[in-house]
Parts: sequence; C-alpha cells; structure tokens
Amino acid sequence: MTDLSLRPAQSHDRDAIWSIVEPILRAGEAYALPRDWDRAQALAYWFSPAHHVFVAQEAGAVLGSYYVRANQLGPGDHVANGTYATHPAARGRGIARAMGLHSFETARALGFSAMQFNLVVATNTHAVALWTSLGLRAVGRLPGVFRHPTLGPVDALVMHRPL
Amino acid sequence: MTDLSLRPAQSHDRDAIWSIVEPILRAGEAYALPRDWDRAQALAYWFSPAHHVFVAQEAGAVLGSYYVRANQLGPGDHVANGTYATHPAARGRGIARAMGLHSFETARALGFSAMQFNLVVATNTHAVALWTSLGLRAVGRLPGVFRHPTLGPVDALVMHRPL
Repeated sequence: MTDLSLRPAQSHDRDAIWSIVEPILRAGEAYALPRDWDRAQALAYWFSPAHHVFVAQEAGAVLGSYYVRANQLGPGDHVANGTYATHPAARGRGIARAMGLHSFETARALGFSAMQFNLVVATNTHAVALWTSLGLRAVGRLPGVFRHPTLGPVDALVMHRPL
Repeated sequence: MTDLSLRPAQSHDRDAIWSIVEPILRAGEAYALPRDWDRAQALAYWFSPAHHVFVAQEAGAVLGSYYVRANQLGPGDHVANGTYATHPAARGRGIARAMGLHSFETARALGFSAMQFNLVVATNTHAVALWTSLGLRAVGRLPGVFRHPTLGPVDALVMHRPL
C-alpha cells in the first residue's frame, strides 16, 4: 500500500465514488441505507453538508472513500461517526485499514474525542475484525436490527473508541 | 391520568410543543440536540418530514409530545426510534409512560417490529427506570458520549425492545 494516498474528495470524484458505493448498496449486506438508491440519491447522501468526505487513491485511481461527521448534536457532538467503502476489486489490500486510520486523524483534527459506529453488521466479520484491530470495542449488540438479504434479521454491533 | 388523550399533533400545537421542548433543550441533560436552538429550529426538527408527531392532552391542555420515526434506512428500517417531552409542570403524573405505551402502538401500526433509543443519558435515572419498566433493555453502554452540564461527560445507554 505504499502508493496509497488519502485526500479530501472533490466534485470530479463523484463517478469513482458511485462505482465504489453502488455495489455495496446493491449487495445490502453492510449499510443501513436503501439498496435501491440511484446515483443522485447516493451521492447527495455521501456528500451531505455535514459530511467530511475523503478518497483513497493509488496511481491515479480512486479505490475507496469514507466520510466522517458528528454522530449526535449538542451535548453529543464530541463523538464522530464514519462510513467507509472500498472498491470490490481492491479489497483485501489494506485500503479500509488505511482509511480507518486516516479517519481517526481527520476526526481528531476536527476536534472529536471519540469515534462511534452505530451499526456494524455482526455477520460482516471482516469489518468487525478490522475495527477491533484498530482499537474499537463493541459496546453494544443490537438484536436483529439488520435484515440481511440471505440470512434474514441479524444483530449489529455498536463499536466505540476514544481518539 | 383518566382524562389524558393522545392524538396526532397539528399545526396549532406548535406553541404548546415549543413550551414543552424548550426547557428540556435549555437544561441540556437529556437530548443530544443543541441547547441553543431557537423556536424555529426546534420545531423544524420536531416536525421533520420523517417524524410522526403526537401530543398528550388533558382538559384541553397539551402536556406532552413525542415523535416516532425509522431509526435507520434500508435494511434497518424495521426498527423505530422515538423522542419524548413532558411539560416540566406536569412531570410525575404518568404522562411519559402513557406516551411511551402509545408510541409502541403507533410504531406497530406503522409496521415497525422493534423500538430502539440510541442515547438514553445514564444519569437520567427517571428515563432509564421508565423505559426499563416498559420492557426496554439496555443493549449497550456508550462511554462518555454525553456532556452533562454539571456532571461532565457521562455514559448513555442504547435501549431496545421488540414490538
């Protein structure tokens, strides 16, 4: 991963981000987002005004994207939340890990003191293992809150770490 | 509480709802919402398009309000989420309990199969006791995610029950 670089997303990254996010939406196994969102709906969400969006780029190709935002408002706005997407053809190469580490730095720079993921699908074992290895701890288990397309209702974890 | 009735909120309830929600916002001890929101900001939030808003009324006076919404989108949209407000002068009379029970019926009628509260401030012992007595179970404990105005960072509970 020596050539991977992380930078803020720009408008010209929209096609690349859609090509990365669409297959994850369609698979319906990871995000609590509508599986049938079209390009405009998905990009409007990904680039919501409150989101700080980054891309992971290698040799000129965008292979991943994430955003960080405040997880709650008011007295809860010191905790960040993030969502991550890696291109299906680029999985297993440490891109999600690099984005995770970068997102912690981004969140710290924005003044957040913790990171919380509200819904990590328990059957998404790669994600659970990755976040655990990056210092997140399961602080809750939500029974049956995610309708997996083949497994039916499955649990999700709430994961948290200080920054 | 024999005279208490629950009904969908209407536009003419806005003043009453603001008089109920404002002191809770200002106190900053229960909601992960900005303490300094003004009337327009708070009512725009309370009456968000995705919210189903109800009021609790007694002898013509609105003493409480709650909303129910989907807690997540897509594969998570079978779980409801609710927020509740009782007028400070009407506390301890079972209004929150009545709203809680009514909200479960509302959520069931809307097709939801569970209720989840994402952030019940752990020091809000009345709320924790109420929700526990109504069948919600703490499925997670979020460390220090709420900045209490006098106690500093305090934990919050994630609470859940099937409907």
